[in-house]
Amino acid sequence: MKIETKPATLLLAVDFAGTFVFAVEGALAAAKGHLDLLGAMVLAFATALGGGIIRDVLIGANPPNSIRDWRYGVIAFLGAALVFLFSGPVQHIPRMLMLTLDAAGLSLFCVAGAEKALEYRIHPFIAILMGGITGVGGGTVRDVLLAQVPTVLRADVYATAALAGALVIVVGRRIKLPNSVVAALGALVCFLLRMVSVWRHWNLPVMH
Amino acid sequence: MKIETKPATLLLAVDFAGTFVFAVEGALAAAKGHLDLLGAMVLAFATALGGGIIRDVLIGANPPNSIRDWRYGVIAFLGAALVFLFSGPVQHIPRMLMLTLDAAGLSLFCVAGAEKALEYRIHPFIAILMGGITGVGGGTVRDVLLAQVPTVLRADVYATAALAGALVIVVGRRIKLPNSVVAALGALVCFLLRMVSVWRHWNLPVMH
Amino acid sequence: MKIETKPATLLLAVDFAGTFVFAVEGALAAAKGHLDLLGAMVLAFATALGGGIIRDVLIGANPPNSIRDWRYGVIAFLGAALVFLFSGPVQHIPRMLMLTLDAAGLSLFCVAGAEKALEYRIHPFIAILMGGITGVGGGTVRDVLLAQVPTVLRADVYATAALAGALVIVVGRRIKLPNSVVAALGALVCFLLRMVSVWRHWNLPVMH
Repeated sequence: MKIETKPATLLLAVDFAGTFVFAVEGALAAAKGHLDLLGAMVLAFATALGGGIIRDVLIGANPPNSIRDWRYGVIAFLGAALVFLFSGPVQHIPRMLMLTLDAAGLSLFCVAGAEKALEYRIHPFIAILMGGITGVGGGTVRDVLLAQVPTVLRADVYATAALAGALVIVVGRRIKLPNSVVAALGALVCFLLRMVSVWRHWNLPVMH
Repeated sequence: MKIETKPATLLLAVDFAGTFVFAVEGALAAAKGHLDLLGAMVLAFATALGGGIIRDVLIGANPPNSIRDWRYGVIAFLGAALVFLFSGPVQHIPRMLMLTLDAAGLSLFCVAGAEKALEYRIHPFIAILMGGITGVGGGTVRDVLLAQVPTVLRADVYATAALAGALVIVVGRRIKLPNSVVAALGALVCFLLRMVSVWRHWNLPVMH
Repeated sequence: MKIETKPATLLLAVDFAGTFVFAVEGALAAAKGHLDLLGAMVLAFATALGGGIIRDVLIGANPPNSIRDWRYGVIAFLGAALVFLFSGPVQHIPRMLMLTLDAAGLSLFCVAGAEKALEYRIHPFIAILMGGITGVGGGTVRDVLLAQVPTVLRADVYATAALAGALVIVVGRRIKLPNSVVAALGALVCFLLRMVSVWRHWNLPVMH
């Protein structure tokens, strides 16, 4: 993808911010499980970068982005260190603020995931799935490592929001809207769907 | 692999059928765990396509077949939708019919897996393992996502049947039997071994 | 990596020895869980080769080493067979001897992992992580398959020792020490740190 330096820098900053938020959430899960510092680092890394790594392995982007660029790993570990050093204050961040930051991270990841899959000439339908996996893959790896059924499998409208954001990317690109408009729109749809579902306690129908 | 159009179409149809059966089983596991629709889609996808994806990542077939060809994903989701819409009737499919369909899917997957590994010039011994992984990998991912010890690790002659089918492929190719004969023989051995073991309650010796 | 035949043979022998030790540990875990012979083979393979496979997939070494070279798989299965046939005596190997052998295997794997990552031009910081993953990845896969929280996430100084050994490799190569000296030093640091931590009951600080 050839993009000019300015937007690339902005995109990277946003990507790093999303990585940091997800890393903090991973480390918080480690704290809840009374893991040690290394466990927090592992869960922060897995939560923040697991989704992107799975996507890159599946679309054939070798080696994955966060293995190629060392800064992602450092940011994940900074998130873990923050939680480790200030676990009291971090655990008292208001729940609504954490949910909002998480929804922002999710929006960014699903957009970036769908865009990257399309660049690698993956079929649009699969690109939507790759957007979803980028958003929820990290949390899934974290839950598997904690020997829990991944929350995305049982919980509310979370992966659905990521898939909706990715769908906007695929459709927007198909009808040739400008890339930046498509990205903004995709992120907005994912973010709003997620936040409204939290606010309204929306859930998908459960199977019997 | 150069095969003429006719058999290729037949093979693809059989492959799609196996994918569908495994997807239905994955979605049924989701129904049993009271997951939502999205959980059913994820488990259907993982069960039906997880084994082939793991095989392709391991043998270096990038991107994996079911990422390259969008129809596999659609079929997996159709299986999930079927279970979701008609969960009552589907759950009352006679157990013996499900076991038979599953054994057919297993036979097909182990044969396809061993053949693909050989095409990628993987050593015959490893190709047998790849056949086994193609057959049981999806169910293993499903069980890990459900935070359960994979049934293949503790249950009866299941992975063993897949390995036996793959062994037939490797040996048959080595002694230069016609490819179609080898494939039919491998599938038959896996299928019969699986069905007889169900019928006779065969199990591997347990460790103490 | 161009190395003369003699050291390569030695390295390979040491690598095989580490694989065997880890395979025995994997099969012992299967015995503890009352799995069948196939379960023991799967856990032996996963424990012995999982770390290297994850590393190779991440650094883009396709196909992974233990898929390319059939001897690793055979050695893993020999380890499983040994435990299966002589589970009584094997389970009575003194705990200290098993811990020592395991520490030796860990040292070797972290050194080999960091070296291979550097050869593939992975950034030194990520190469340290790859050394750690090579050492502890197999045990993590084993624990996930047993539906347990991986012991590296909660236990003592284990992954830390692997990371320390990998750190020595990266620093030693950077300051241009001879490769064999660096390898010996890295393995020694990992081994000593692990053994002293067992002896002294060292643990990382736990999160609250």
